[in-house]
Formats: sequence, structure tokens, C-alpha cells
Amino acid sequence: MTALVQRYLDGILAEHAGVSQGALANYIPELACVDPTGFGLSVSSSDGYVYESGDADVQFTMQSISKPFTYALVLNQLGQDDVDARIGVEPSGEGFNKISVDQVTNMPKNPMINAGAIVACSLVPGRSVDDRFDLVREFYSACAGRSLDFDDDVYRSERASGSRNRGIAYLLDSFGALGADPDDALDLYIRQCSLKVTSTDLARMGSTLARGGLNPLTGRQVTDAAVVRRTLSVMVTCGMYDAAGEWVSAVGMPAKSGVGGGIVAVLPGQLGIGVYSPRIDDKGNSVRGMLVCRSLSQQLGLHFLTVSSEAHAAIRGVYNPRPGVRVYEVHGDLLFAGAEQVARTATRDCAEFDTAILDVSRLHTISEPARALLAGLSDDLQALNKRGLLVDPSGSVAPATAAYDDLVFATVEDALTAAGDQRS
Amino acid sequence: MTALVQRYLDGILAEHAGVSQGALANYIPELACVDPTGFGLSVSSSDGYVYESGDADVQFTMQSISKPFTYALVLNQLGQDDVDARIGVEPSGEGFNKISVDQVTNMPKNPMINAGAIVACSLVPGRSVDDRFDLVREFYSACAGRSLDFDDDVYRSERASGSRNRGIAYLLDSFGALGADPDDALDLYIRQCSLKVTSTDLARMGSTLARGGLNPLTGRQVTDAAVVRRTLSVMVTCGMYDAAGEWVSAVGMPAKSGVGGGIVAVLPGQLGIGVYSPRIDDKGNSVRGMLVCRSLSQQLGLHFLTVSSEAHAAIRGVYNPRPGVRVYEVHGDLLFAGAEQVARTATRDCAEFDTAILDVSRLHTISEPARALLAGLSDDLQALNKRGLLVDPSGSVAPATAAYDDLVFATVEDALTAAGDQRS
Amino acid sequence: MTALVQRYLDGILAEHAGVSQGALANYIPELACVDPTGFGLSVSSSDGYVYESGDADVQFTMQSISKPFTYALVLNQLGQDDVDARIGVEPSGEGFNKISVDQVTNMPKNPMINAGAIVACSLVPGRSVDDRFDLVREFYSACAGRSLDFDDDVYRSERASGSRNRGIAYLLDSFGALGADPDDALDLYIRQCSLKVTSTDLARMGSTLARGGLNPLTGRQVTDAAVVRRTLSVMVTCGMYDAAGEWVSAVGMPAKSGVGGGIVAVLPGQLGIGVYSPRIDDKGNSVRGMLVCRSLSQQLGLHFLTVSSEAHAAIRGVYNPRPGVRVYEVHGDLLFAGAEQVARTATRDCAEFDTAILDVSRLHTISEPARALLAGLSDDLQALNKRGLLVDPSGSVAPATAAYDDLVFATVEDALTAAGDQRS
Amino acid sequence: MTALVQRYLDGILAEHAGVSQGALANYIPELACVDPTGFGLSVSSSDGYVYESGDADVQFTMQSISKPFTYALVLNQLGQDDVDARIGVEPSGEGFNKISVDQVTNMPKNPMINAGAIVACSLVPGRSVDDRFDLVREFYSACAGRSLDFDDDVYRSERASGSRNRGIAYLLDSFGALGADPDDALDLYIRQCSLKVTSTDLARMGSTLARGGLNPLTGRQVTDAAVVRRTLSVMVTCGMYDAAGEWVSAVGMPAKSGVGGGIVAVLPGQLGIGVYSPRIDDKGNSVRGMLVCRSLSQQLGLHFLTVSSEAHAAIRGVYNPRPGVRVYEVHGDLLFAGAEQVARTATRDCAEFDTAILDVSRLHTISEPARALLAGLSDDLQALNKRGLLVDPSGSVAPATAAYDDLVFATVEDALTAAGDQRS
Repeated sequence: MTALVQRYLDGILAEHAGVSQGALANYIPELACVDPTGFGLSVSSSDGYVYESGDADVQFTMQSISKPFTYALVLNQLGQDDVDARIGVEPSGEGFNKISVDQVTNMPKNPMINAGAIVACSLVPGRSVDDRFDLVREFYSACAGRSLDFDDDVYRSERASGSRNRGIAYLLDSFGALGADPDDALDLYIRQCSLKVTSTDLARMGSTLARGGLNPLTGRQVTDAAVVRRTLSVMVTCGMYDAAGEWVSAVGMPAKSGVGGGIVAVLPGQLGIGVYSPRIDDKGNSVRGMLVCRSLSQQLGLHFLTVSSEAHAAIRGVYNPRPGVRVYEVHGDLLFAGAEQVARTATRDCAEFDTAILDVSRLHTISEPARALLAGLSDDLQALNKRGLLVDPSGSVAPATAAYDDLVFATVEDALTAAGDQRS
Repeated sequence: MTALVQRYLDGILAEHAGVSQGALANYIPELACVDPTGFGLSVSSSDGYVYESGDADVQFTMQSISKPFTYALVLNQLGQDDVDARIGVEPSGEGFNKISVDQVTNMPKNPMINAGAIVACSLVPGRSVDDRFDLVREFYSACAGRSLDFDDDVYRSERASGSRNRGIAYLLDSFGALGADPDDALDLYIRQCSLKVTSTDLARMGSTLARGGLNPLTGRQVTDAAVVRRTLSVMVTCGMYDAAGEWVSAVGMPAKSGVGGGIVAVLPGQLGIGVYSPRIDDKGNSVRGMLVCRSLSQQLGLHFLTVSSEAHAAIRGVYNPRPGVRVYEVHGDLLFAGAEQVARTATRDCAEFDTAILDVSRLHTISEPARALLAGLSDDLQALNKRGLLVDPSGSVAPATAAYDDLVFATVEDALTAAGDQRS
Repeated sequence: MTALVQRYLDGILAEHAGVSQGALANYIPELACVDPTGFGLSVSSSDGYVYESGDADVQFTMQSISKPFTYALVLNQLGQDDVDARIGVEPSGEGFNKISVDQVTNMPKNPMINAGAIVACSLVPGRSVDDRFDLVREFYSACAGRSLDFDDDVYRSERASGSRNRGIAYLLDSFGALGADPDDALDLYIRQCSLKVTSTDLARMGSTLARGGLNPLTGRQVTDAAVVRRTLSVMVTCGMYDAAGEWVSAVGMPAKSGVGGGIVAVLPGQLGIGVYSPRIDDKGNSVRGMLVCRSLSQQLGLHFLTVSSEAHAAIRGVYNPRPGVRVYEVHGDLLFAGAEQVARTATRDCAEFDTAILDVSRLHTISEPARALLAGLSDDLQALNKRGLLVDPSGSVAPATAAYDDLVFATVEDALTAAGDQRS
Repeated sequence: MTALVQRYLDGILAEHAGVSQGALANYIPELACVDPTGFGLSVSSSDGYVYESGDADVQFTMQSISKPFTYALVLNQLGQDDVDARIGVEPSGEGFNKISVDQVTNMPKNPMINAGAIVACSLVPGRSVDDRFDLVREFYSACAGRSLDFDDDVYRSERASGSRNRGIAYLLDSFGALGADPDDALDLYIRQCSLKVTSTDLARMGSTLARGGLNPLTGRQVTDAAVVRRTLSVMVTCGMYDAAGEWVSAVGMPAKSGVGGGIVAVLPGQLGIGVYSPRIDDKGNSVRGMLVCRSLSQQLGLHFLTVSSEAHAAIRGVYNPRPGVRVYEVHGDLLFAGAEQVARTATRDCAEFDTAILDVSRLHTISEPARALLAGLSDDLQALNKRGLLVDPSGSVAPATAAYDDLVFATVEDALTAAGDQRS
């Protein structure tokens, strides 16, 4: 199944390759000396399979993408009550360059703004900044499934230039909002911003959130589902700064961006997505990264309010009517992620049959990307020396081309007959 | 399966029955003369089955619950671009009693606040207020699956007393924000607020949204999935006033309340929920309605970021190893809604078998409500004169009680043997 | 003395005559059909003498200039406590088109914004709108010293088009903020906005405020000093919308503008100023009216923080050393208004002497406008067939020109000798 | 004249001595170890005479009272344009603990808030913090008329604890708002806050502002009138935090408080006032200091909108009708400050006459404090072995007691006759 999904992703990258709006972050020299044309996209399925396109192996610093992960870490370490007493969960309704501390409680409004992230850093347990940073790096690495590197140049440079974050840290200290010394909290924040990832790392980290804290690559339960649910909730309402409503409507994936050019997006239960393109807009979001997220959502139907409607869809039954033949009954409303699951299940299990019969006669609706995936299943199985037949009485999946005439049937019985004929 | 779910819902109602906080809305006499102890809960599955508990047949006026439905109606009639040019989709970050018009564009910040709802009313097409109201009532009725009645007393009373909404309507007119005469827009708004529903109507209306615009009771596609996605997106970020972040984190269902005491909540793809309890808090939300939504989410795991992770869960395979015996293979991470689907499928299809074998040996995780549902399946089948056996080698589902000794097996083969034994 | 002050005022008008920025208010047709080039300036001294320049007799509607006068009226009628319970006195910190109602108390922030003015109207006592309007018109007329006319066309037009003010009135009613029916309060507000004045009327109304409520023309005490002090205080902090600090710094006169093109400004204890120029900026202030106020303040030193320093200045002593000769001793820091007083006193009393000796030897400082006024006194007296001599040992007042050689002396004795010589 | 004014001030202190609300500032130990009952009041006339009452010689640190003086210093050094480009002049409309930086320009809203004061410090010229502090201390000392001391303990303590101001300084630096290194600007700010004054120093500093920059004690022109006008303007609109409107209405004196317990208030052209009482309210204002300012304004009529109306009042003429007799003609509206001037003039010049005749027959109105002052003039003169007679045909000044029978006359002629009689 890799091939068709791969072509989708390559196509989306190609579609936006020519966009040159935005500029490299320039507040420290290190961020301004990367290749501005870098462009990578990685998508991890919920069982850990990763599709990559473009510069998926280029490393860049996480910057603000670190925020949800450290928030998850402190939720994991301290529990929700203690963290809620320090950091709010409401959208700030303010621009990205505001401090956004609640006027009554002096608590940062949410952990996705700098003030909230610095408070989160102050809550990471440990006897020293080194101790705390070890914990942070270990947690991120566990989400990514590999040990992440540290960019010392970016760290030193941000440390020297960060008047704004230093100002926020001292103000938070004056409010009694920090759980640690302001200089230490700030130091940890700058360190975590300087950890390096690729778009594939981000996709894997996203898939760990998508799976409720289970890294599908390593099988390790990094944190629990309640922590992830709260982290994703906050990403939904506060992740993309002051346009939460528009982002939820148009994209519908909890996400977080960083001025290094990365974006992580999560389709709960389904996918982790990482994008890299270092030219950012005046709000600090990767220009092409945002476009890619929109295209993925719109073209592949990856919206969390849509995808969840598939919970009752996809594979309804699997049975072997006779040795060597397996029938997959698909029903309900089928979108991209469900179709990808069906197709990947069939190709994965192909050692167990000679002929697969895909019965789509009970499908209610099917999206175009899903249709194309299922229609291509026969070709994929043929490449594995297997046969794929389609029971599609209403023609909802199969293209009306002669090439499919021998593969499409009105009933399972007809398909079985054909399977028998051809086998003999 | 009805019995156990019914007991869950009855239990949640009983748990909160003693709560007497809040007060009847009193700004018009008609709202203050209802029975304050009324308490009803209805839950509609995505295929239209409705569970009811308490005063599920008491009628009350929709009030603000009308807002998302009229927003959906104008999206449906005019298209998203025209509506977006008039009404924003961002949370207001302001209290529920603020006007919340954007300082630059003079557009209401979202359609869930009064200003946005009045603009939406001004966009409903029609030559007269009567025409427009016919369209609104028809749309709501199509979502509910029955023709909704109108409360003339409430309408007349609100019309006479509504200085605040009249003020908002005139201000919007002065901003050029309305698509119709301010008095007409206001009149339509008061009329739609005066339509009467029961908690069951709300559950059905919610299930129509949960199904992407398809009323599962009537089978009518009331509007399309894109309209519903945008409507639900706005309910996610703006539905519960200024505590969007907390609501998304703790409840995780797009919802809307009205001062009449109703709340509609939607679990996309899964459920529509209606609650009624007329004592409201100082923000205008039903006190017990909010508690019920929280309990449903927490006890039954009805959070949209959680449920969507079930897309790859539930029934993996269904087959008949021999006549009269059907095996249901369940896998993945199983939560309430998935278990309810499994159990309901088995009881619904019980005419097709004598013995059902539920194979849970491939389950990854299971929530407590889901466990209880599956464990109770044997009893439910017995009531239908069928047998239900469990293949549960690790004891993840079956209670460790003697009553289950004869029903639980380590392998499907063992269960088949037992099925044969008992049958003979 | 008229001549020199007149030339000052004519000069200031000429200086700004060519300014064509701004546009006629156009929200109702009646306001847009006036002559856009109209330009009038009137200045009333604290004893009621009025200087006029340009179109000082053109009538225009008061619009928002009515606000401080109705505020004064209700303070006068109800007392400060009752009014303070309804209308705040703090700057709104918001743009001129905001409603600016306190978020906690729902009280308008001050009486200079529309919301506050409508509340003030709702507090005017009377059994009917006609009664109340009679009271308002009588009060304004008493301040102006003549009966003011009413523009019925403007009234009818604003009544038909005022969605914004109608919206505000209904919102205020919904907050319980009004002391009367919202339609009645609004009607009175529109009526008072439609009263007609000339720039001279405004100057006289301003001088009534400058004199603590005493109309210097009619001698009638229209209201008391405490009412005026509070009214002027609010004009200081809230009169010129959201630029109070800049206006106080640069102009330093409590003021109020109206979209009809008028501005009233008050120099407490000294002057009332009226300006008319109907082209307004996007905040609704007369463009040339603002420029004239700035020029008057800067060129003539009319800043309330400066002028008050004259309290210990001006005429220190007046005596007749011998029949027919009067000595005026001037001391302290002399600015325009003080010099105008000195010069006017001498010319007014000239029937009582043949020769006036102005002794400026004790002056501490003198501003340039004040210097020019005193230096011109000899000419003014000569026009009245009197002689004016100057005792000015340090040359602080007299120009160093030969024309003054015979008029300037080092001591009063020298001047007396000269007076005697010349008389004989 | 000292005696009666002294009794007024002592009385006001006594009136509020029992007030024990408020608490010592406790954010650094040094501020909390002063005597909480300390209470001092000093009033300097515009010619430098100082009245003192209570603990007028207790030293305390200036804290925020330093703000207007450093603002005046940088206006003086850089000119208004350069300062305006860095610091606004508008009220913030926000609580005293807000940062109040303009959302668009990132400029502090005014120099009376901490952010604005730190920017002002960054603009003080000098090669080092020591250089700059020398300039600041010299400027303050010139305003006070003596060299001010520095409290090293308070300085060190504030330096160690000032996270909030450090946070603000760094944020300002990140906005590009500072003219110097953030640590240096902050250091200077803490130093200036640690300069020590008495209430008498504050009264003298206030009188220097009241006199347009001329220290009436030393005769030194410390800065010019334009600088003072702008400084006082900003104190009017921004000096007393978020209650500018109420302060202007009720007190009407530009003022500034500090958490050390001091308040400086200025009646332009008239008086400088210093109060000390270290118990502060939750906004950081001296509780009793505020009450004293209100009482002074209300009881003595010290409101800048009222006092300025005296510009045409007070002494109209002074003449000696015969050797040893001097007539003072008083006219207009007489308030406290004018009466104090009259009385002080007569007592000061008493070497030049044996009998003073105070002619109040032309008075228009007189306030009660002014009346008492003039009525007491006879006693004051008697103590100097002079006689004081009153021409008061309408009884507006003299008490109706027998003690005055011999001192009050209907005409100047009657008084002259009596003067002759009594002299002989």
C-alpha cells in the first residue's frame, strides 16, 4: 500500500514546493543560516509505519514544539491537579507575542505560550538543571523512539539573546508562579528548545500521542492516556495561537509549530504528522508547514471530527469461506485512514491467503481518497503474487474501466466462483 | 443490550438527582414556572437507537441550543464563504454576557454568542419572517425527526422583555453586520428560541450531527458533512462560553446549552446526547446537565479525542465455525462505545445463531465500562434464549466469580467443545 | 484693547484657513449639506466680553457638545451621589466607537461617551420627554445667555437613522442602567444633540463654566461651583476621547467636540472658547477646531496648569499719586490672560484719569503675547485721548525702538515728572 | 499668618491620626521596620514659605515618587520629541500591577508606571550608572533645595528581590524600548527609589513644580516651564493609577505616591505639598496620605480647576490714604490660597504702616477657609503691635460677635476716621 500513499504525500509536497513566502527566523544567527528551501514531510500510522517525503532526514531545533511534550511530562510526573494549580488550559485570545497571564490568578493562560512553557519547565523535578534536562530529553526521546541530539550553538545563542523570555521568567517569579528559580526554569526552557528533530521524529512523537502515549514503534507506554488526552485537548484549543477556531474548523488536528520551521500534528487514534520548512510567517509558523497540514486534512479527510465517525466503520468481518480465500467485509462511512487500514491489513496478511475478496457492498459512503486506495488494492496484491477481487454491486469503488472487468463482481458467491475458476 | 446501558444512564441520573444548586431562569415569568426538579437524559446511538432516562418526554424551549442549528442552516443555504464573511469562528475570550464583536471588523466573534446568532438569523433566506421561520422550524424538525412545536407564551414574553438582544440587534445594524432588518432578525431569533424539544429530541438532533448530517432515525441527509464539521468545530471552541479549554479537556464533546435547561452534546460518529434540568448556574448552563455530561464522558469514556482512537478497534472478524455458532473477534483498545456496538450487534443478530462466542483474546486494553458491558452479554443473550460464551485466557473481561466458571474458556476450540456439549 | 486680541484671533484663523483635511459628517443628509468652509472662532473673557472672528454667527447643531451640559444639569438636579451611582468618571481607554460600559458594574465609564450621555438623559427629571427637553433647553440657554433654537430636520433624520444609539439605549436598559424608558432617554438625547448654537454661544457657555456656573453676560448663577468643577474634571480626563493625556499636555483646556463641527473649550477662571469648522476627522472631531485650540494654547499660553500660576500675579496695586494720574503696579509671572486683564482694566477705567502709568518694574517673567499686549497699551490709550507711560527699568516690556523713547522711564518719579511736564 | 494656617494643617492631621487601615510595605524587610504611626505634613507656598505639621522631619525612601522627577529630568536633557518617541502620556486604564505597554508600539503607556519609569531611567545620559545616578540625585536635590541622602540598605534589598522590575526591564529590552542596558536601567531605577526625603523635601520639590521649575527657596531655575507643564499634565492623567478621573474630580492636584508612604501633590502656581504616613493600601498608596490630600483640597479649596478661577481675584489695589495707614482692596471670588496671600502680604509689609484697612466691600464670593483667614487678620496684626480694620458693609467676612464691633466699618472713610480717632 505504500506506493499510493507515498504518491499522495509526494504530490502534496510538490503542490507547495514553489511557495516562497515567509522568512527564516533571524533573532539568533544560528537559525538564519539553514537552507531556506528545506521541505520535509513524514506521516506515521498508528501502528508505527512511517511514510517520508522530501527532506525528512534534515535535523532542526524543536523550539516551541517542545511545549506540549514538557507539559505532558509534568502532567505525568506531578498529576493533573498540581499542574492545573500552576497552568491554565484556556485560549488566551491574545496575539502570540503577549504574555497572557490571567489577570486574577497570575497563572499563564495555557502551556502553549511561552509563559506557560516556562512554568512547566519550573515544575520538572530534579536536583539540578542537568538532572531536569536529562528527564526532558529522555521523555522526548522515548516519544520519538530514538535518542535526540542537542544543538549547543543554538542553545548558547538563545541564552545570550533571550531578553524576552528572561523578562517573562522574572515576571512569573514575581507572581510566585514558578516552581523553581527563574534562571533555572529559563535555562531548561532554552535547552529543550535546542533539541534536534527531523520531520520523521515529529511524526513518531505525534503517533505516540495519537496512540494515547504508546510509542507504536518501540511499544513503550511513555505516558498514560489521560495525560495525552489533556495534552491534545490543550493543543486543540491553544496550539495554533490566536486562530484556534479557524484551525479546528479547517484542519482539525491538534498541532504545534516552532520557529525552527517544524510542525507536529496529531490525528488522534490514527496518525502522527511531522512537517519541516524553515520559512516562517510573522506569527512564527512555518508557511509551507501550515499549507501542508491544510492540504492533508482537506485532501485526505484527516479531521478529528470526521475521522471519529469511522469508529463504526471499516472492517466489519473477516472470514475464510474456503482455504486460500479470505473475505474482508467493509461497511459504514469510509475515509482515507480507514481505507489505508483495510488495504494495509490485507497486504500485511497476504501470506495467509491466495485470493482476497474485498466486499464493499455494505459501504454507506466513501471519500475519493479512500476509493482510490481500495481500487488500487488489486494492483498492490498482484505485486505480491496474490489476487484481489472486489464485490461492488453498485460500482462505488471500482473505476468504470475495462481493466477492472475481471476483478469486480456483484456478490461474494460470484467472486468465489471466479476465484475457484481462476485457481484451477 | 439495552438493559445495562439503561442501568448506566439511570445510575448517572440518580447520582446527580440530589443536586439542587442553580435557579430557574427568571427573566421572563414563563421560564420560572416550570417544575425545577425535572431531570431527563436521552442518548441516541449513531444508528438511531435511543436510550431514555427520567423526564425524557418533558418539553422545554430550546433557547440558545438553537444557535448551532441555525448556523448549520445558513451554512447549508449560503455556503461557508458567505457566512464566514459575516460571522467569525474564534472563541471570544470574554464572559457570556459580553457582546463580543471583533474590534476591527465589527463581526461577531462566533455564532454561539447572541450577536453571532442574531447575524445568523439575519442570513436565513425568505421574503418574510414567517417564511424564514418556516425554514428554521423545518430544518430543526428534520434534525429531530419530528415536527417541533412552538411556545407562543415564551415567544411573546421574550419579545416584550428583550432589551438586551434588541440592543445587540440595533448595534449590529449600525455596524452594517446584518443581512436583514434588525427587528426581523431579532424576531426570528426569539422565535427559534421558543421552539420546544424534549431531551430525546436533543439526542436525536445531536445524533444527526454525529452522523455528519444524516438523521439516523429517518435516514434523511439533512445537511452535508462539511456543514456539520464546521458547526461541530465551532461548538468545540466556542460552545460552552469562556471555558472552552476546560470543557474540551474534561468532557470532550461539542455541546451547547440553553437557559431553558437543556444541553445537547455530540460525540462525533458515535452519539447524540440530550439532557434536561432547568436549574441553571449564573452563566446560564443547566447545573445538573453539566454534571451529567461530565459523568458520561468520564465514566463511559466519551471524549472525542479518546473515542477516535477506537477507529482501529472493535470487531475484527465475525465467522460461523459451524452452524448455529458465531464467533465475534474483538481487538484493539475497547471503550464504552465500541463495546456497546459489539454487544448490540450480537443481540441484534441473535436470530442467526444459538451460541455466540466472544473472543477477546486479542484485546489490547479495555475500559471498565466496556468490560462490564461485555461481561453482561451472557445474561442478555440468555434472556433471549441464546447462549453467550467468552474466550478470555487472560481474564481481562470476565469477573472472577463462580457464576462465570462455565462460560469462560481459554481458546475458541475449548468454547466450541463446550458449545457442542451443552447443545447436545 | 480689543484691537490686538482681535488681531491674534484673526491671525490664528488665517493660519489654519487653508487646511482642508477632514470631511463633513455624512451619516445623516442634513449634516452633509452645510458649507464645508465655514470657520468661526469666539472667545469670551471671564467677565463676559466676547471677541469674534470669522463665521461666528453661523448656527450648527451641538451634537456631543451637549454631553457636559446635560451632565452638569443632572448633577445640579440630583446631586453628585445619585449621579455617581449611575455614571462613572474614568477615561474609557477605548476608542470613541466603543460602548465602554464597566465590565463589573455595567455603568457607563463616563458621561462624555454616548452610553454615559444617554444615561444622563434618562436622569433628567420630568413627567414627559417634552418636559425634560424644556428643562434641558432652558439650562443650555441659561449657559449661553440666549434662547437656543431647535433643528427639527436634524432631529427627525437622526431619529430615523440612529441604530447605534438605539442599540446602546436598549443594552443600557437591559443592564438596569437607565432611569427612564430607553426610547424616551434616546429621544431626549437626540433632541439635545439637535439644539443649535454659534461659536459665540459656545464661547459664552464655556465662560459660564469658566466662572464656576455664573454666566458673566447675564449675571445669572446657572449652577454651582461644585457641579462645574466635576463637569470640568470629567472634561479634562474624558472629553477628547482616547487621547486625554496628549490633550491635557498639549492644549490643557477642558473641551468637548461634536460632529456638527463645534468645539467648546474652557480655561477655568479665564476664558470660554467656541470654534466652528464642520470638516471632521475619523474620530468625529473638527479638524480645524482642534488646530485652533492647540494654537490658542501654545501661542497665548492658555494652559490650565500654566494659567493657574498667575493667581499671584497681575495687578498688585492701583493708586492715584495725584489727580489725573493713575499708577498700575503689575508683578509676578505675566501671561496673556493676565495682560489682557491689565490692559482691559486700564482702558475701561480711562474716564478716571488723563495719564496711566504702568509700572512693570516688579515683573518676574512675561510671556511674549503678554509683552506685546502691554507694549501696545500706549497706542490704545492714545486712541482714547489718554496717555500711557511705562516704568520699565530693565526693558522687559518696551520694544527698543525710538517711538517708545518718550514713553518709557526708569522710575515712577521720572514718569510722574514727565506726566506733569507734558500736561502743562 | 503662620498661626492660622498652622492650625488648619494640625487639625487635618489630627482628624486622620486615628486611621489605622493599611499596612507597611513588606516586600523587603527594610520597608517593614519603620514606625507605622509616623505621620507628617508639609506645605510650601509658591514663594517658598513652608508650614510643617507632625513628623515632617522623618526620612523615608522616595520609591515611585521619583518617577515624575526623572521624567522631568529626561525631558529637560533630551527634549520632548525624543522622550515622546519612547514613553507615552496616556492613562493605562489598567491596574497598578500591569505592565501597560502599548500593544502596537510596545512603548510604555506613561512614565508613572514602572515600565515607563525604567525606560526614563534608560534615557538619562551618562557613561556609567554612577554618572547617571549623580545626575538624577543632583536634579532631585536641586528641586528639594538640599542634597538628598541615599539609603543603601533599601537599595541592596530591592536589588536582591526585584524579580518583577527585572522582568519588566528585560521585556522592555526585548521590545527595543530601552535606551540602555536593561540591568543598568534597572539599577538606576532602584537607586532613585532609594533616595531619602522628608515630607518637607516633598513639599519643596512640589513647590518647584508649582513654580514652573523655579525652586522658590533657592531661586534656582531647575528646569523650564514646558518640562514642568508636561510633567504635571502626566501626573494629572496618570499619577494616581487607575482612578485618574476620581482623583481629578475629588482632589484636583497632580500627585504621585510611593510605597515608602510618601505623597507629593502640586497645586500649580500655588503650593507644593508633602505627606508621609507609611501604612499603604493594596494599590500602594499611603492611606492617610490620600485622606490628607482629599481634606486639604475639600477644606481649603485646593483644586486646580477652582484655584485658577482666582486669577482675576485677590488684591485689586493697595494705597496709603495717609501716612501710617494702608488700604488693601480685595475683590472677586476669594478662596484659601488668595486669602493666605492677602494675609501674608499684610503681615509681611507691616513695618510700612501702623494701621491696615482691609476693604472687602467689592468681594463677590468668599470660601469659609478664606473668611476665617481674613477675620483673623486683626489678631495677627495686633500680635505685631499693628491695627487691622475691616471695611465690610455686608458682613461677609467679620463674625457677628461683639469682639469685632470696633474693628468693622461700612466705608473706608469710616475706617479712616476710626483709625485717626484711635491713633490720637
